[in-house]
Amino acid sequence: MSREWLIGIDIGGTNLVVGLVPAEGGEAVGLRNRATDSARGGDAIVTDVVRMAREAVRDVVGPGDRVLAAGVGSPGAVDRMTGVVTQSPNLRWTDFPLRERIEALADWPVYLDNDANCATFAEWWLGAGRGSTSLFGITVGTGIGGAYVVDGRIVHGVTDGAGEIGHTTVNFVGRRCACGNYGCLEAYASGPNIAAMAREGIQAGTNSALTALVDGNLEAISAATVYEAVLQGDPFATHVLTEAARFLGVGIANVINLLNPEVVVVMGGVTQAGDHLFEPLRAEVRRRAFRVAASACRLVGAGLRETAGVVGAAGIAAVGLGRLGPDSNASTP
Amino acid sequence: MSREWLIGIDIGGTNLVVGLVPAEGGEAVGLRNRATDSARGGDAIVTDVVRMAREAVRDVVGPGDRVLAAGVGSPGAVDRMTGVVTQSPNLRWTDFPLRERIEALADWPVYLDNDANCATFAEWWLGAGRGSTSLFGITVGTGIGGAYVVDGRIVHGVTDGAGEIGHTTVNFVGRRCACGNYGCLEAYASGPNIAAMAREGIQAGTNSALTALVDGNLEAISAATVYEAVLQGDPFATHVLTEAARFLGVGIANVINLLNPEVVVVMGGVTQAGDHLFEPLRAEVRRRAFRVAASACRLVGAGLRETAGVVGAAGIAAVGLGRLGPDSNASTP
Repeated sequence: MSREWLIGIDIGGTNLVVGLVPAEGGEAVGLRNRATDSARGGDAIVTDVVRMAREAVRDVVGPGDRVLAAGVGSPGAVDRMTGVVTQSPNLRWTDFPLRERIEALADWPVYLDNDANCATFAEWWLGAGRGSTSLFGITVGTGIGGAYVVDGRIVHGVTDGAGEIGHTTVNFVGRRCACGNYGCLEAYASGPNIAAMAREGIQAGTNSALTALVDGNLEAISAATVYEAVLQGDPFATHVLTEAARFLGVGIANVINLLNPEVVVVMGGVTQAGDHLFEPLRAEVRRRAFRVAASACRLVGAGLRETAGVVGAAGIAAVGLGRLGPDSNASTP
Repeated sequence: MSREWLIGIDIGGTNLVVGLVPAEGGEAVGLRNRATDSARGGDAIVTDVVRMAREAVRDVVGPGDRVLAAGVGSPGAVDRMTGVVTQSPNLRWTDFPLRERIEALADWPVYLDNDANCATFAEWWLGAGRGSTSLFGITVGTGIGGAYVVDGRIVHGVTDGAGEIGHTTVNFVGRRCACGNYGCLEAYASGPNIAAMAREGIQAGTNSALTALVDGNLEAISAATVYEAVLQGDPFATHVLTEAARFLGVGIANVINLLNPEVVVVMGGVTQAGDHLFEPLRAEVRRRAFRVAASACRLVGAGLRETAGVVGAAGIAAVGLGRLGPDSNASTP
């Protein structure tokens, strides 16, 4: 039986992941993975992902099968009209014409979107929020990003800038954020900020198992070491994680009161902490969001994890081709 | 020439306003206005608005013209499927079957939505955000409500609860809000809270022209007296209004970062303060929102004012009839 395939290309700050997804939806297969090594520059990365896609196609695509298109997810600000990554601090790109460069090497049409949109769209298409009428996705890692899918459509906003939940203010006079502002959600709940808050407490004299975990080198504290200390039952690390979870709860409660979504999916490294994160987070949401809206919202962890970027990028291509969209998977309210 | 008309019924906590709007869009005409007097109960209000609608029809609708439907805007939580106002503190209604009661007296189909959705939809259809692809409306009065229109469609959310920007947290540990929570936008920027902040400052010993304006009776301070003192150049009243404007700016910056809308419309009594409100508000938006998204967003006062409720209710009816919607006025991004 001949099948139709979409290529999903997930360009991350740390890793490149490429795979194939059946055009009608399904698991990602033929996965390729390698370090991004962004210092090499954009053209080397483009050459790599096209080679990885060709390898995946060679492995997976049978005689009579067709490759319809490729979707690409990139971190940073993406101009979908021109296919240009206008600004990506992680990749050190400014106005890099990513779509054009990939199309020059490949023989499929290429669709581009940012990574948070791709991951969230994947969770709506084939993940934890499959078939929901409205879903907000929040990715908590080095930064905090988000995306909103309503009636099967990503809300991109007028300049493709929607979804920046990490830079919504949750504390009027608050911690300084990397964006230059004060009191942003990201300043309390991103991985580096969780680590920084732990470090600051220990530097101020608080006892914590964290100090031993990093052999006294406080600079070595990361969000992952904080979770490790939480699992060992360390009260201070638990306090730090709980505070971060409460701020995430405030940000999510704000989204619930504003948008009343059917599903909120929390993605990214910080969800490794499991119930240590989700319990205080859910308690804060119940405290802050309207009861009816909070009860109606399914607040869950990611369904797809490592492959969300590839699946979402393939999904973006499906939308670009008109194979997937507003009225194919969701009802119109 | 025969014309088609829609009835718009705006049920407010203070006033009932009813009028007719051409089905293809246009100015509201045949307007009727009376006090709500909510203590009379829901049935007396229903009788009144139906009578007012009949009078408007008699005055405006010519021979050969047709009345297609009525739209009704009601404050509070509205279940659009059942046509029931589930909770309206202003009208003292709980589970009041508003649509059914109106339909029992009238001979047009009736469509129902809440007042914030109607006012915002009016600004998108025929007001300050006419033809925009995405618009967020915020109404600042006794409370703070909001609504979001994207691709010509109101985002209602999964339980018709979207738009509650007044109850998004802008200050983690902040002022107590009427909703029971702490640090909500409404606790800083609604009319009664602007008045309360002025009163608290004067009670704490601050000198202000406000004291003389209310003959020393601080309980008589309202948001309107605060604006009056601002117009007299009173520094403390100006400080209070500026703080409220800054918090509004935070709430709006959060919406801009989350949704990247083309237009934000600020409606309601507080906009009487004009530039005294909009200047500090815009400055705070520039400080907090991403530059590209903030620059792309047209942040304006209402275009329709008194008739927004009637026009929006008529617009809801137009959508209900399939005469107005996603692809009639806005392009799909």
